This record gives sequence, structure tokens and C-alpha cells, in this order.
Amino acid sequence: MKDPGMYYWNWHVEWDTLDDGHLTKIFKVHFIGSTKYQQVEIMDLGVYGKSLVLDGKIQSSLLDEKVYHEALVHPPMLLHPNPRRVLILGGGEGATAREVLKHNTVEKVVMVDIDRELIEIAKKLLPEWHQGSFDDVRLELLISDARKYVFDMAGKEEFDVIIGDLVDPLEAGPAVKLYTREFYAKLRELLSNEGVFVTQSTSPTSTPRAMGVIKSTLETVFGWVEPYMTYMRSFDSMWGFNLTGMKYKLSMLDEETFRERVKRIRGGLHTLDYQSIVWMRSLPLFIRRKLGEYRGVVSTDNDPVFIEV
Amino acid sequence: MKDPGMYYWNWHVEWDTLDDGHLTKIFKVHFIGSTKYQQVEIMDLGVYGKSLVLDGKIQSSLLDEKVYHEALVHPPMLLHPNPRRVLILGGGEGATAREVLKHNTVEKVVMVDIDRELIEIAKKLLPEWHQGSFDDVRLELLISDARKYVFDMAGKEEFDVIIGDLVDPLEAGPAVKLYTREFYAKLRELLSNEGVFVTQSTSPTSTPRAMGVIKSTLETVFGWVEPYMTYMRSFDSMWGFNLTGMKYKLSMLDEETFRERVKRIRGGLHTLDYQSIVWMRSLPLFIRRKLGEYRGVVSTDNDPVFIEV
Amino acid sequence: MKDPGMYYWNWHVEWDTLDDGHLTKIFKVHFIGSTKYQQVEIMDLGVYGKSLVLDGKIQSSLLDEKVYHEALVHPPMLLHPNPRRVLILGGGEGATAREVLKHNTVEKVVMVDIDRELIEIAKKLLPEWHQGSFDDVRLELLISDARKYVFDMAGKEEFDVIIGDLVDPLEAGPAVKLYTREFYAKLRELLSNEGVFVTQSTSPTSTPRAMGVIKSTLETVFGWVEPYMTYMRSFDSMWGFNLTGMKYKLSMLDEETFRERVKRIRGGLHTLDYQSIVWMRSLPLFIRRKLGEYRGVVSTDNDPVFIEV
Amino acid sequence: MKDPGMYYWNWHVEWDTLDDGHLTKIFKVHFIGSTKYQQVEIMDLGVYGKSLVLDGKIQSSLLDEKVYHEALVHPPMLLHPNPRRVLILGGGEGATAREVLKHNTVEKVVMVDIDRELIEIAKKLLPEWHQGSFDDVRLELLISDARKYVFDMAGKEEFDVIIGDLVDPLEAGPAVKLYTREFYAKLRELLSNEGVFVTQSTSPTSTPRAMGVIKSTLETVFGWVEPYMTYMRSFDSMWGFNLTGMKYKLSMLDEETFRERVKRIRGGLHTLDYQSIVWMRSLPLFIRRKLGEYRGVVSTDNDPVFIEV
Repeated sequence: MKDPGMYYWNWHVEWDTLDDGHLTKIFKVHFIGSTKYQQVEIMDLGVYGKSLVLDGKIQSSLLDEKVYHEALVHPPMLLHPNPRRVLILGGGEGATAREVLKHNTVEKVVMVDIDRELIEIAKKLLPEWHQGSFDDVRLELLISDARKYVFDMAGKEEFDVIIGDLVDPLEAGPAVKLYTREFYAKLRELLSNEGVFVTQSTSPTSTPRAMGVIKSTLETVFGWVEPYMTYMRSFDSMWGFNLTGMKYKLSMLDEETFRERVKRIRGGLHTLDYQSIVWMRSLPLFIRRKLGEYRGVVSTDNDPVFIEV
Repeated sequence: MKDPGMYYWNWHVEWDTLDDGHLTKIFKVHFIGSTKYQQVEIMDLGVYGKSLVLDGKIQSSLLDEKVYHEALVHPPMLLHPNPRRVLILGGGEGATAREVLKHNTVEKVVMVDIDRELIEIAKKLLPEWHQGSFDDVRLELLISDARKYVFDMAGKEEFDVIIGDLVDPLEAGPAVKLYTREFYAKLRELLSNEGVFVTQSTSPTSTPRAMGVIKSTLETVFGWVEPYMTYMRSFDSMWGFNLTGMKYKLSMLDEETFRERVKRIRGGLHTLDYQSIVWMRSLPLFIRRKLGEYRGVVSTDNDPVFIEV
Repeated sequence: MKDPGMYYWNWHVEWDTLDDGHLTKIFKVHFIGSTKYQQVEIMDLGVYGKSLVLDGKIQSSLLDEKVYHEALVHPPMLLHPNPRRVLILGGGEGATAREVLKHNTVEKVVMVDIDRELIEIAKKLLPEWHQGSFDDVRLELLISDARKYVFDMAGKEEFDVIIGDLVDPLEAGPAVKLYTREFYAKLRELLSNEGVFVTQSTSPTSTPRAMGVIKSTLETVFGWVEPYMTYMRSFDSMWGFNLTGMKYKLSMLDEETFRERVKRIRGGLHTLDYQSIVWMRSLPLFIRRKLGEYRGVVSTDNDPVFIEV
Repeated sequence: MKDPGMYYWNWHVEWDTLDDGHLTKIFKVHFIGSTKYQQVEIMDLGVYGKSLVLDGKIQSSLLDEKVYHEALVHPPMLLHPNPRRVLILGGGEGATAREVLKHNTVEKVVMVDIDRELIEIAKKLLPEWHQGSFDDVRLELLISDARKYVFDMAGKEEFDVIIGDLVDPLEAGPAVKLYTREFYAKLRELLSNEGVFVTQSTSPTSTPRAMGVIKSTLETVFGWVEPYMTYMRSFDSMWGFNLTGMKYKLSMLDEETFRERVKRIRGGLHTLDYQSIVWMRSLPLFIRRKLGEYRGVVSTDNDPVFIEV
């Protein structure tokens, strides 16, 4: 037999838009199936290694899941002087909780994910992601629609940090109403006086409209937003985040405070240091201009923003 | 979520040559793994339905496995007036044995396949193929190299029909020496006086060289060969067979004898009738000419013919 | 640079259905552009060689255009004892006319094609196809909608042979109304008393519904139809034709008459002989059964049959 | 016909590694052909727009060629207090020269490119790139091997800025010896006392080994290197540059000097501002660590570094 690497036979295509996508070899399939909410695939993919794929979109891979989860979790956590109570929206495979729980200030983490079956699959097949976080006594896992939770608990609970680790707002997908003005207005009521909120915000380079509108939408609710981004090879693009909240800004975090607060983190950071934070928040002109095109374009329950494909 | 349409995410590519191949959606994965001898995949593929894939090549699919197995098995079986003892080389998934065992003349079937693990997988996951043939008391299953069996038993055993259901002769693959002059010379010693031999012979349209050389090689041993072919959509081409033996020719089988002998077959035929046999053996000029280009080109142990990709 | 092998960079995909397609390397681009009616590409493709592609579908390639054009033209032409007047519907690249004009009985060929620009492109860039047929004084080329021509001329003109070499009936495409009962009823009025009609009929294996419905539709008009097929690698499947007419049947053509009439053909046949005709019309059971599923399903102007993709 | 956007037929694949690549629709082909040195394609590609492709690799596209050329040219040009003489190695399509010539300090630009035919094609078909730069009297275009030029002129000519805009060092490709220690040692002799050198350095994310080794190799010659990077969607990854020279460092360029020197640039900058420079040179930890793996690995004429695929 010829080297199968030459004429390979099973390929995953990650469609970035209707006109382009990324081809990767499927080396191994650990699981393919469907939950009530989405198609779930766990596969070893080309250069990415073991990967979680939901509805055909790579959610994270061993190649760079740390880059993503550290970029999502630690900026808001390090901004807060003493984050004790944390809310995670989504985050089914347990890696966001894993990073949050590393902070020794944390007393309670509420994680709200709608897909019980996915979490069961993750517990069994994605130990590299959760690393036991589901067993941490500080974690309270709720199987529920994040929107319902936010609307029900607004005014009743309070969190120092809220992290949106939700799937992308795809057309007719379950997540479109988790990126709207109405949703964010309710969510704001769940933040403590010094609370920080961050949400993954799709790609500033492949889907700048989505990221720009999320930014504009948050601005109408909080008055300000700090977008930042990192590079995710397994997402085939730059990846964006929008950070906002009641008080603290990423641009105010100086190197000394950063170094001091990193000490809270059991095991330390793997992909981030202070210079990385500077890099993430120093968006170049061509990105700032692209996001700026959507200034004032707001996602609402009646007219939510979504991504094609 | 949009109907994924073309924007589907997992694809199988069946490479026909170094320059072209066939793309199919992977709808479901039942099994992906490796035995000692080959990579084994059992998947639901596009229009093909459930399919067995070995080393990246579709071996058979529910769409048309009957077309293949009936074309392979019944022409030689119906040619023989009373086939009692049958030898199957390869045929791991049990469908060739299934068809042979439908003939009520059959007393003993010896099936020689090298890959014990594949057979275990097939028993469990491919019931549509074997349909219990592995449990038939007339079947003797030997886990062994077909070449070793043929060389060991030549002159000791005798069969009325021998069926080569082997994987294609790929470069450096395990099957290249199962299509050589030396192998066929030994195999001839296993045929009874009226014995018939047929072998799958790759594609006359995609890999005419392979089919043509197998024909030429058999001619040096038996003096004559009747090539025939059918169309296999799941192989993405016409598929070829070479039939030879000690006495009976396909072109001699008249319609009355055909109809009479078909009565031997429990459950009858599904994809064949007499007209189909005429169609299969009436190769059109452009195929006969193509195969004719390899007249006299013989595969030997020292210089075996093989297929690239 | 490494031999690009699979790592080639430009690929053509011929979609057979919504779930599968054929990948081929693009080696050279001679022309890409659009006429008023269709996108036209002339490219050297993988194993196919120079190919004409209309709206993404390979129409013919040097690899096997002779197989297609000889199968389309010569069965009806050889059935007729003295074909003098011939009508070609479509056939823009000139190869169908080329084959018709080889018959020394032919006095007049009317070719009706809607796409003037395509014909100009073909004249310049596809000399291997037309081989000068556009310059034959017996050819009368009309730039017109074939439907309009047939409706206008019914009862006014008479042809011994009519050949439908039209693009497939794609949804919302220009050709759907060239395969309906109303169209065929008018076309019948253009046939002489002994007239023969044949039409390419898409693939019996990839799109059996289309071929089956064309057959059923012709049956309502002519009372009988003889379907036949050949194998076209560049179409990635078996390819079908339906033949009917006022008197002569393919099954009545004996070998002696065939041999006699072939003498009319300047230069002789390249891919056909009498055995090939037998092969083409001896459809195997699994094809006959498939086409039979559409018995009685008729394409009408109000409810025309079409192919997806 | 269905919307061809859904089932598109011609695709370009940009292979990033042996295991993954990027699929893009080919909307239009302006040119496909070969020069003595490389295959040249000019096509409208998916989201990229009009693109120049050499040997299957997108060199630049209208989508983001400005991002690339401004990142390559202006950091070294703005570092130098008075860049009058500039050498460009490669840069065939004229856009690097275009950016250099915008600096009103520039008196002479020598551009050395081996591929005369490519330059002729670019002059005719890529006006958006060169924008007339080939006609600037300050430009001296030499058709020559860059290596030969550097070895011949070392010690005879002197430049304030040298810019390496060469194709990637592919295995057995023409450019592997344009990234070696021996080459850089000679090139250093062409720099003036305050000279700055920058070279495109492949991707820090897809081919970090190549970028890391180029950095290490330059360090052995110059003692220091500043790597920086931007994001290129049309290259499907972050894209890297290594800057070094006799005196000036990017990290020493303060915002005031930057603003002052930008005034030299006719028409100003389109994708860069000071914050973008900070972003480009603030490599995050996961990139610095990756490049750091190749510390001390040096490319030499005898053992040059190269990229597979």
C-alpha cells in the first residue's frame, strides 16, 4: 500500500464562509453522534489533533484549546481584584470551568449548559479538556437554556465574572438570542458592582460583522467594550472576544498587577504573559476599521445578528 | 442551522487514479480502526449507504453489493453442472459465501481469508452482508494467507468452483502475489476436471492495465479467458471479472440451461437474469481494445502488476 | 518543487447528486467565460484531457467524446435504410454533426442551437470536436430555440432522423421543456414515415428518474421506446439514450445489415461494432428495474421532469 | 439551474501542510500559464478577489495585499532616518516597489527578480499591484538571480534598506539558498552603516520551523533579529517577517518619530498605524515559544531549511 498520507481518503471541511473552507485529514474518529441539540464529533484531525466538532464546526482541539480557553478566561478573571463567584454560559466540554477553577479566589462557579448529553460525552471522552473540573465541589452544573437562566435569575444572583462560552450565532441556531441587546441587558443585572463580562465573539477576520455587531450591542448596554483577539489555527482565523463590565478595563491592567494576580492561578499560565495581553488588545488598524463598520448596528431579539454557514 | 448541502463537513474521497477521485458525504461512522493487515472503516456514505472501506477503498456498499456479489458468484456457479465443492479466496465480509451457499448443490465451501480481525468486525457489524453465512455448517473458514493455502493444498484438494474475491493488487499491498502466473499455475491444480475459476479483476475503465494483465496472465496458464464486467456506482466505474477453467465457457451457457440452473438458488437472483449475463460478457469495442493493449503482458512473482493509488 | 500529486491546487468538481461528485485536476484552462445562456469552460482535466464544461457539467472530453457521439448518432442512422435529411437539436460543439455528415447518404443536416456565442467559441477552440463540420455545405446551422423551431416547422419539414443532443433538464434550466410530452408530440410531426428519433437521456445510474421519465414520456407519444446505454468515464456513470420512431427498432438490426450499412460511414466507426450495439441495448436487470419504477410518470409542460444539481 | 454558489465546480486548494489546506472557489481565471521558473495563475478567488498564485501558492490577493506589502515595507523604511537607496529582492508583481517609492526620501530602488516573464505578465495583468511603479524613473529593474546579484555586488554597492520579498523556501525550489547563512553574510556587505534588512519569513503558525530557522540564521550573521507578524487571511495564517540590520531596532521606534516619518509617504498608510506596529512586534507567548524551539538551528548552503508542500 502507498503511504496513505499521500492520497488520503477521509476529510473534514470547516466552512469559513459560503466561498471558502479548510480541509483537514480525519485520522481517527472517537465519536460521531447527535444529541438533542447538535451533532457531536470527536476526531483526531490533521495538524489539530483530538478535536471537538459541533454541527461541523471545530469547537476546540488539543493543538490550541489552551490558547482559546486562557484567552477567554484569564483576562476577565485577572481584571477583577477578587473574583469569588463566576458564571459560565455554555462551556460544555469543561475546559472553561477548568481554567476558572484554577484561580484560588474562586468559591463558586455556576455553569449553565443546555446539552446534558454533550456533557456526558465530554466527561467520558474529553478528559484532556475538563481534567476533572466537573468533580470540583465549587462547580454547580445546571442543565438549562442560558437565556432562561439569565432571565430567571436577574436580580437574584450576583457574579464577579460572567463568561460567555457559547456556540456561534448561526442562522436559526440555538444561540442567536444569546447575543442580543435584551439578553445582555438582563445579564448586566447578574453582575456585581465590580463585575466583568466577556464573551467569545466569533472571528474578526472571517465574520467581522458578527464580532462588530456583538461589540455594538454590548456598547448600548454597558457604554463601553474592549474587543481583543488571538490567533486560533484550528479555527482557521483570528478569534475575537468582547470584554465589558461595571468598572475594570483591560487597558488599565498594568504589568505589576498582572504578575501579582497570576499567582492566584494554580499551575500558572501556559500560553499567556503580559506581552500577550498587550498583543491581544492592540488591534491593528485594519481590524479596528473592519469592526468599526458595524458601529451602531445592534442585535435585538426581533432582528438578531447571525452568521451564514 | 442551514441545510448543510454542499457545505457538509465530512467527506470520503475514493481516489480512482492519481488525478481523479470521487467525493461522498460521510453520514455516519459505525467503525474506524485497523487490523493487523488493513485499515477498516464501516460508514454510511452519501448515495451508497452503509459501506465497507478497506485502506480507503470502498469494498462494497448496500447500494450495490448485490450487483457485485451476484456478478462474481453466479456466472461460474451456473456454468458448472453440479458445483459441490467451492473455494473462496478472500471474501472477508461473508457476502460471497452467502451467495455460494444459496446453491443447493453445494456441500462444502472453504473460505480462506488472512484477516481474522476483519472477519470478527464483519460478523458483528455487517449482518446485511453475511446474513448468517458464517454459521452455515457447510462453510469451513480458514484464517490464512490465500497464497500459502493454494501452494500447500495444490494436488491435495479439488474444487468445482474457485472464486477470487481479493483486494486489488496495490503497489506493495498484500495482494499483488495473488494475481501472478505462478499463483494461477498452482491454483489450477486445485480445480477439478470440470472446474471453473473466476477472479474479480479491478476496473476495465479506471485501471484497464490491471484487468488486462490479469487476463493475459490467466491466458498463459489456462489457454483462454472470458472477461466480463458490470457497472458499480460505489466503485465509480465499470467493474471487471475474468473467468476461466478446465472446460465450461460463459458464452456456451444458453438461456434454457441458465433458467434451469437458477432453480438451484435458494431465494433466486436479485440483479441478474439471462439478458444481464449477455450484457456482462458482450464487452463493447472500446473496452475490448483497451484490454487488448496488454495482450502478452504477464504478471509474475518477480514482476507483479499493480495499481497506483 | 515536490511532485504535487494529491497536493495539487486547482480542482474541478462534477456534482453527480447533492451528496456526491467527482474530483479532477485542472491541468490547463483554455477558456472560461459566459455566453448569454451558460457558463462555458474549456479545460484540460485530469484523466479526461481537453474538455468542454457547460454550467459546471462536463459535456464531453477528448477521453471519450467519440464513445458518446458514436453511441448517440450511429444507432439511429444505421437503423434507417437511407437517411437523407437529419435534424440535430443542440449539439453546439459540432461533433454530432461531424458524425452525421460521415454518412454518405446524407443530403441535408439542419442543426438548431440557441447559443451563437458557444458555437463561435467551439469553432475556434474545439477543432478536435467539429473537425470542420461547420463548413460542410450540407449543414444548415440555425441559431434558435429548439422548441420554437420544432413548433414552427411541425408539418412543414420532414426528417429521416432526428437527434436530441441537448443539455440535461436541470431545474429552471433552459432545457426542461425539451423533454416533455407536448414537445415530443410536435417533434413527431417532423419525422418522415420511416423516421427515427433518439435523444440523450441523462444517466440511468446517477439520475434514473430523469431517464425513466423521458422513456415514459416518449412512450405516450410513440407507443414504444428502446432505451440503451454506454459507459462514459468523463460523465462518471453509465449514459443513457432513448430511441423511438415510426418504424425501425434497434433490436431488429441484424449483424449483416449493420455491416452493410457501416460502409456508408466515411472513415468507419471507432468505438462501435455490432457486439457493442448488443451490449448497449441489453440492459441488465438492475437497470431495467430502476427505469421501470417510472413507468407512467410523464413529463409535461406544466410539470416537467428535472434533475437537481 | 440551481444557484451555482451552492454546488460550485472549480476550486483552488492552498495546501498549508501535508495534512491540511484551504479550499476557495475559483470565480474567474485571468491567466494560467508557466514561465521558465514557475507556474503563474491570476484568478478571482472566493473571498480573496483577484489573486496572484505562483506554483499553487497565493502570493497576494486584492483582499489583503496592502496588509502584506505595508507590513513588509514600512517598518524597515520608517526605522531609517533617511532611506535613499533601497534594494528589493524578488517582488516581481511590483507592489513592494510601489510602497517603497511612496517614500519621498527614496532616490534609487534596485529590484532584482529572476523571472522576466512573470514581470511582463504582472505589468499587463496586475495594474492594481504595481500601479505604475515599473515606470518610476527611480526604479532600476534587473532580471537576475538575487543570489548572484548579492554575491557579485557585495562590497560594491550600498543600500539603506534591503527588502527580501522572495518566494518561500520550498524543497528543491529556487529560493532555498536565499535564506542561508552564507547568503545573509554576503547581503550584510551590501548594507550601509545604518542599513536595515527585512525578509518575509513564511508563517509563524503554519511553518514555524521555517520562520524560526530564518531568525536563528540571521542572528548568527547580525547578532540580533526582531521577528514580527501580521494576519493574512489569503495566506490562511499569521505571516512573519524578520527584521535586522546595522543599528536601528523596531522596538526603539517611538510614536512621535513614527508620526513624523509617516509624512514622507505619499498618500499615507492604509492598514498601519503606530498601534498596529506595536501589535505586530508584540508576539504572544505561544508564538515566541514556538520560534524559540529553533534557536541555534541555522540554514546553510549545505543544509538549507525548507518547507514541505
